[in-house]
Amino acid sequence: MRTESDSLGQINVPKDVYYGAHTQRALNNFPISKETTHPEIIRAFLEIKQAAAQTNATSGNLDRAVAKHIVDATKILLSQPIDLTMFPISDVQGGAGTSTNMNVNEVVANTALEQVGRARGEYDYVNPNDHVNMGQSTNDTYPSAGKIALIRLLEPLFSELTLLVDALGNKADEFSTTYKMGRTQLQDAVPMTLGNTFHAWLKPLRRDFKRIEAARNELYTLNLGGSAIGSGINVSYHYQVHIVPNLASITGLPLEQAHDLFDATSNLDSYVALSGSLKNLAVNLSKMSNDLRLLSSGPRSGLHEINLPSKQAGSSIMPGKVNPVIPEVVNQVAFEMIGFDTTVTAASEAGQLELNAFEPIIFKSLITGIEHLQQAMNTLRINGIDGITVNKNRLSQDIDLSVSFATAMAPIIGYKEAAKIAKESLRTGKSLREVAEKKNKFTETELAHIFKVEDIVINARTPEHGLVLHAPKTTV
Amino acid sequence: MRTESDSLGQINVPKDVYYGAHTQRALNNFPISKETTHPEIIRAFLEIKQAAAQTNATSGNLDRAVAKHIVDATKILLSQPIDLTMFPISDVQGGAGTSTNMNVNEVVANTALEQVGRARGEYDYVNPNDHVNMGQSTNDTYPSAGKIALIRLLEPLFSELTLLVDALGNKADEFSTTYKMGRTQLQDAVPMTLGNTFHAWLKPLRRDFKRIEAARNELYTLNLGGSAIGSGINVSYHYQVHIVPNLASITGLPLEQAHDLFDATSNLDSYVALSGSLKNLAVNLSKMSNDLRLLSSGPRSGLHEINLPSKQAGSSIMPGKVNPVIPEVVNQVAFEMIGFDTTVTAASEAGQLELNAFEPIIFKSLITGIEHLQQAMNTLRINGIDGITVNKNRLSQDIDLSVSFATAMAPIIGYKEAAKIAKESLRTGKSLREVAEKKNKFTETELAHIFKVEDIVINARTPEHGLVLHAPKTTV
Amino acid sequence: MRTESDSLGQINVPKDVYYGAHTQRALNNFPISKETTHPEIIRAFLEIKQAAAQTNATSGNLDRAVAKHIVDATKILLSQPIDLTMFPISDVQGGAGTSTNMNVNEVVANTALEQVGRARGEYDYVNPNDHVNMGQSTNDTYPSAGKIALIRLLEPLFSELTLLVDALGNKADEFSTTYKMGRTQLQDAVPMTLGNTFHAWLKPLRRDFKRIEAARNELYTLNLGGSAIGSGINVSYHYQVHIVPNLASITGLPLEQAHDLFDATSNLDSYVALSGSLKNLAVNLSKMSNDLRLLSSGPRSGLHEINLPSKQAGSSIMPGKVNPVIPEVVNQVAFEMIGFDTTVTAASEAGQLELNAFEPIIFKSLITGIEHLQQAMNTLRINGIDGITVNKNRLSQDIDLSVSFATAMAPIIGYKEAAKIAKESLRTGKSLREVAEKKNKFTETELAHIFKVEDIVINARTPEHGLVLHAPKTTV
Amino acid sequence: MRTESDSLGQINVPKDVYYGAHTQRALNNFPISKETTHPEIIRAFLEIKQAAAQTNATSGNLDRAVAKHIVDATKILLSQPIDLTMFPISDVQGGAGTSTNMNVNEVVANTALEQVGRARGEYDYVNPNDHVNMGQSTNDTYPSAGKIALIRLLEPLFSELTLLVDALGNKADEFSTTYKMGRTQLQDAVPMTLGNTFHAWLKPLRRDFKRIEAARNELYTLNLGGSAIGSGINVSYHYQVHIVPNLASITGLPLEQAHDLFDATSNLDSYVALSGSLKNLAVNLSKMSNDLRLLSSGPRSGLHEINLPSKQAGSSIMPGKVNPVIPEVVNQVAFEMIGFDTTVTAASEAGQLELNAFEPIIFKSLITGIEHLQQAMNTLRINGIDGITVNKNRLSQDIDLSVSFATAMAPIIGYKEAAKIAKESLRTGKSLREVAEKKNKFTETELAHIFKVEDIVINARTPEHGLVLHAPKTTV
Repeated sequence: MRTESDSLGQINVPKDVYYGAHTQRALNNFPISKETTHPEIIRAFLEIKQAAAQTNATSGNLDRAVAKHIVDATKILLSQPIDLTMFPISDVQGGAGTSTNMNVNEVVANTALEQVGRARGEYDYVNPNDHVNMGQSTNDTYPSAGKIALIRLLEPLFSELTLLVDALGNKADEFSTTYKMGRTQLQDAVPMTLGNTFHAWLKPLRRDFKRIEAARNELYTLNLGGSAIGSGINVSYHYQVHIVPNLASITGLPLEQAHDLFDATSNLDSYVALSGSLKNLAVNLSKMSNDLRLLSSGPRSGLHEINLPSKQAGSSIMPGKVNPVIPEVVNQVAFEMIGFDTTVTAASEAGQLELNAFEPIIFKSLITGIEHLQQAMNTLRINGIDGITVNKNRLSQDIDLSVSFATAMAPIIGYKEAAKIAKESLRTGKSLREVAEKKNKFTETELAHIFKVEDIVINARTPEHGLVLHAPKTTV
Repeated sequence: MRTESDSLGQINVPKDVYYGAHTQRALNNFPISKETTHPEIIRAFLEIKQAAAQTNATSGNLDRAVAKHIVDATKILLSQPIDLTMFPISDVQGGAGTSTNMNVNEVVANTALEQVGRARGEYDYVNPNDHVNMGQSTNDTYPSAGKIALIRLLEPLFSELTLLVDALGNKADEFSTTYKMGRTQLQDAVPMTLGNTFHAWLKPLRRDFKRIEAARNELYTLNLGGSAIGSGINVSYHYQVHIVPNLASITGLPLEQAHDLFDATSNLDSYVALSGSLKNLAVNLSKMSNDLRLLSSGPRSGLHEINLPSKQAGSSIMPGKVNPVIPEVVNQVAFEMIGFDTTVTAASEAGQLELNAFEPIIFKSLITGIEHLQQAMNTLRINGIDGITVNKNRLSQDIDLSVSFATAMAPIIGYKEAAKIAKESLRTGKSLREVAEKKNKFTETELAHIFKVEDIVINARTPEHGLVLHAPKTTV
Repeated sequence: MRTESDSLGQINVPKDVYYGAHTQRALNNFPISKETTHPEIIRAFLEIKQAAAQTNATSGNLDRAVAKHIVDATKILLSQPIDLTMFPISDVQGGAGTSTNMNVNEVVANTALEQVGRARGEYDYVNPNDHVNMGQSTNDTYPSAGKIALIRLLEPLFSELTLLVDALGNKADEFSTTYKMGRTQLQDAVPMTLGNTFHAWLKPLRRDFKRIEAARNELYTLNLGGSAIGSGINVSYHYQVHIVPNLASITGLPLEQAHDLFDATSNLDSYVALSGSLKNLAVNLSKMSNDLRLLSSGPRSGLHEINLPSKQAGSSIMPGKVNPVIPEVVNQVAFEMIGFDTTVTAASEAGQLELNAFEPIIFKSLITGIEHLQQAMNTLRINGIDGITVNKNRLSQDIDLSVSFATAMAPIIGYKEAAKIAKESLRTGKSLREVAEKKNKFTETELAHIFKVEDIVINARTPEHGLVLHAPKTTV
Repeated sequence: MRTESDSLGQINVPKDVYYGAHTQRALNNFPISKETTHPEIIRAFLEIKQAAAQTNATSGNLDRAVAKHIVDATKILLSQPIDLTMFPISDVQGGAGTSTNMNVNEVVANTALEQVGRARGEYDYVNPNDHVNMGQSTNDTYPSAGKIALIRLLEPLFSELTLLVDALGNKADEFSTTYKMGRTQLQDAVPMTLGNTFHAWLKPLRRDFKRIEAARNELYTLNLGGSAIGSGINVSYHYQVHIVPNLASITGLPLEQAHDLFDATSNLDSYVALSGSLKNLAVNLSKMSNDLRLLSSGPRSGLHEINLPSKQAGSSIMPGKVNPVIPEVVNQVAFEMIGFDTTVTAASEAGQLELNAFEPIIFKSLITGIEHLQQAMNTLRINGIDGITVNKNRLSQDIDLSVSFATAMAPIIGYKEAAKIAKESLRTGKSLREVAEKKNKFTETELAHIFKVEDIVINARTPEHGLVLHAPKTTV
């Protein structure tokens, strides 16, 4: 053990750890979650400390030697995977992120001290507050680190989303002439193609991409330079002008400084926007998963239009059973994200005056949501979509048995008469065509038209390259 | 009573009503809400019926005389406020909107029949299904009518939002040099201006405007021409190409036809996006209302920084009490909208295959949310924001008593020493300046700087015209 | 117009209205909802005013003549349906219900004045605050009136819930030997009876009854006698002891006084509990509605196991289509209630210190939820459940075609071998029995057992009168 | 590597692991969460396997030697902390828990094989499906294991809840005569004691205890014996009668078998009930935390009525700042739980027909919520409540300055006149008493009464031992 002291007095910390008094107190205060702050947040924090030290050195506020030690320390820490034993505080924490900021300040200071042969805790040489945190406050560094982490964690999500859309597009092409019954309200409606189905699943995902992108773009705006509450107290003019450009250069991200730093410190609406866009993706994935499970229901007593790849035995007791386990996990990730959105909303609404102290739970919710959605899309694509096959016989049979062609009779004999024919078919079990032919109400040409799917369903093509309108072939 | 019949058989309807069998059945089936479908939805439906009749006449599918009767009927119905006794079905209804579409079809048909001297129900002349609904399905008309209604109902919300931002901006200007204590986590932090406070309230509202606008723009895309499930069945080529442009012309809105009509029929993600953006506005309004109530708490035992206008006696028992009733109603409208977002999310996720049957509850939730938010912003501005005054003495006193200036000492004597001075001030009750002077650690110039708010808080201006950076006056 | 005055000054009110200054100000302040406070809340308020006047008269604090006028006025107002034009304030209102309490105080005072030949506004004789509101505060009367209203509005919900459970029970009996395929994860599992299905729908509703009842019972506890914040200020000892028993007598409800009146004034957890129990009912109704829609899907391309009653033509374009409109409206009411629970939760969490000012939106959400759920259950029972019929052929065919009997082979030949037989049946299209017979692995007796539904499914009876365990007929 | 095979074919698994083919496939299918199924679920699963083997041995269906090996294996596995490397599947998983059930079956089988000197995978001797899983299905074991885990994880939550209530009770006693201003709507209302405040915080927690307990009691009902879908297929009569009593004996819990096993398999309303009760606890803890932060706001510009213990330096930049970090983390855990309730609701509603496949996300949400709430209450009590001190001067000063005593004037001079005096005091800054004395409207006795807190506030005692009614001292 070594003894450190802070403004609350002395406290023992394990001898060899890089963190110090503040971190130790936080460990005692927040024994909540088994998970620590996400390494991407730590990584972004280290970059901020590096940018700050450089900027403070240039402005003349920070001794150049001290600055160099800090910069070197951050480079060492960034050169390897983040060692979470150095950053052990629960990701669910009070204090608006101060614990994590101070944790980083302490680890950077002690890493720097180690480089120059000083013992841990000799903060006169490199001080967590006065040097590492110079020009900064948790108020501006914590949200900035969180935003950078979110921006980076969204990248693989965007990739997976694109791959999923492509996979669905391939299937839409593959099934572009595979006719099937369409349904409204789970009741037989009129024919369409299975390609239409897949295309209708991918379209909202494209919109989700744009919506998440729009929400992501809001995150580029940082409140660095605002220090406490956005006031810029203890911040040099040079620092305030240069900190964000310097950080942009280090991170390679198009970061910008907020126009109103008070606003950027107190309002979390950009997280609500991001959460909302992720929730919308979750809703669309869930709807698609519901459909996948429904269309593959069976094998004997379901719709059984498509087959999902068999990924594992479906039951510990029922031999031969294979279940739609992949869409099922997607559904659950979606329900989880819908819940996270509730949490983000509640936490954002609860902010008071110049600061919202509840960013830790917001970051946790958003990051878990992003990672789970990304992984869910990955397994959905690889283990779900790519291997889908179709039961052509079932689809044809459904169309043949359907009374949906009565819709095509209505323009000729009127809705009411067409309804009578449909109901007679249903009541008697005779095919619609058989009933229709007996009525002597249609010419041969009309009958051919009524029962020719390609003729009556004018949009039944996958509209990837523009809405495909069938040229009018009849007088209808 | 008169007797009508539909495919389910005969049913009695009141003799003089304009609606018919389908509406009557829906009245029996859905005795849920006391409210009917919103008149703006009915209005948009009538415009769709008008556009459809014109388009079908031009294409040659609909007899020109019948088309003219339909167009005339819609013009008559649109020339006056929508008569909700004609459209009495509960806005919470099953059937994916078919009841409302048929209600409109029946009222238009009977209004047309009345114009040509026919009795109600003589549908051989003008038929609700075969003529009024020609080329259409509930699947495409109901969402299209709903979207047009939402677009229009958002207009007054945008206006109120702009007026509220302006009102806050005026106050931000008025209080741009009124210094006050800023707080983080409800604890005294560092000084700022009251103008900063108001500006930090208005900024997220500007972002909300853009987010709601982006969501609104998605609504311009209609699935008309898709008829059942997006298939375009029973739709002529001419109709499909012209129906949306014709409707755009009638409504004066920049409507567009969806690229994928199946997608546009089955997916409700645009409503989720709109709901999410409205929820974000609600969250921001609620946060501001919380702050308003907090800053005006008192009169004797609260923060009491600002005074809200007295709008009504605050208590039936406590004389002289005046409460923040206006922000309180805004909070409640926000909580309501947050709940509506949950409903919209659940309803959107529940859509199956080619149609989401749950648009009625989505429309009800969104429309109520929009109207209540608009009204809440109206009363917030007029009865809340415009008349706010400030208790200058309290603000100055708070700054004078504060130990927050210890933050400005830290760059000079270090965080730890500054903390000691702050704690001594708090413990002894002596002013921070008194304690600081005794320490003999600061020059006169430093002391003057430390306690000069304008000097140390470099962003304490309302940044309406760009972030106002104070030129550096000291070496800090 | 007549002029009234209150502590904020003079204000004009329409000449003949019974309400006064406070109500008029509230009308100006809260132009939010088109709906007014629910008449059951007004009714309960009037009963409270009556009980208070009686109690204050007995204690000697209120002149007996004035008390009599107040009591008479409440009796007159209670003798007819509540006239909402007297109580016109939006149900979404700030001020923690003060506006509604004062509205009632004013209407009672002016009704009393009218009885004794005085003009409206001559409050020296009967005063809204000093006489009608004596011993009370909005803090205790508003929640008490709300609770009484909720208790009464729950009664018809309990009745409908019971009727629905009975209807489901009748169907469970009717179909107690109708065998069908059971499904897990939408995949064919093992046989059961349709009676099992209905019984599994009704059981959670019985639990919901108990849960809602438990939540309802919490509402009997009132904070009357607490006046402002629960302090009992301005309340006589006599009043405090007698007000709740007197009100219990007037209302006929087993009302009790809270043990801790501060708690009962500031905490709204009982509403959260009620809301949660209603949400659970909504979830169960929605799950059942989803199943009803799924089992009745078809008529040709769906599961088509059961037929819902045809309640209206299902489409404006597709003749003969009939949709599950009744379960669909139930789903939507459920989604609405799920959203209301979010609202109630947010509003309850937002209470501060001695009062939660957000009860108005809580009452509105709960009351609307209760009324809509009740109506939804009503139409579900009458128009949905009672007329359900079954497609016996389809059910038998599904069982015959099923490979689910492989489960019954596993105890004999092992899971792995049974799985092979099941997969061969699926791959070849041959029936499971045909494949099994060829394998020569089963005796005749075993085969008879394996394929005899009654033999292998030991719970396949509707367990209304205790879990029906089949006596073991084989060695299994 | 060793090769295992299941009904989908062969698959390689690492040579020395205890799990087998099914687990390996699940690892590939569900790369979602970094967390595995909770060890308490595994523990309960092992107990179920033990009970099943014993029961199947007694019934004669399972070879006694095999049964003994299974029982021994479970005893070994239960004798030490659950080794999660044996149970590595993501807790977010599709397949309704089949993967976890099979994981347990495989580990038990291989542990048993190891005991008898057989190699892993020699399932002819002890088979995961045919022996370990005999009489069971994932449909009945997974929910049963989850319920047992929840029951046990609730125990420490109940303990912490009780300790927290006690801690609050101690403070209520400590401050039972510490008078302070009460507030409604953040505006000064009338006096009360700080003891009242603490007591009003603890009362809802007591109700939460009862509500969670009621929800917990529902979990004792298991669907074991139902095997697939509740049908009891492949279950012997003996097993069905004895499995639950046997498991009750092993676990020491009062477990009961469900009356309707289909119901108990398909409906998840008991989890919704539990989730709702936990959410209610979260709401109450959050409300209390909000109040704690508000009452301790300051130190100079806040309410500053109480002092929370200083637990860590509050800021990286502002020296001497101490923040309410403990209530802040409680708030966040509450927001998280509110979100989990949304997830549980969505997952429960999504169940279809005979099974809800979404229990994994429900268990994860509930378990995380329970653990975090428990830990949050722990730190709230130890680091928050126990060390609270009071600023007596501030409390007295607030009462002295208050105009709230005007409420006590109203019964004497009427509400309107009392309001005038209150407003004059506020306008002039003179004390209420000073203004009142000048009016010559009160006798000396009346004045003494009006300003004597103990006299006018009749409930201002902590009502732990029954509602303490002050004997009436005046004619009021």
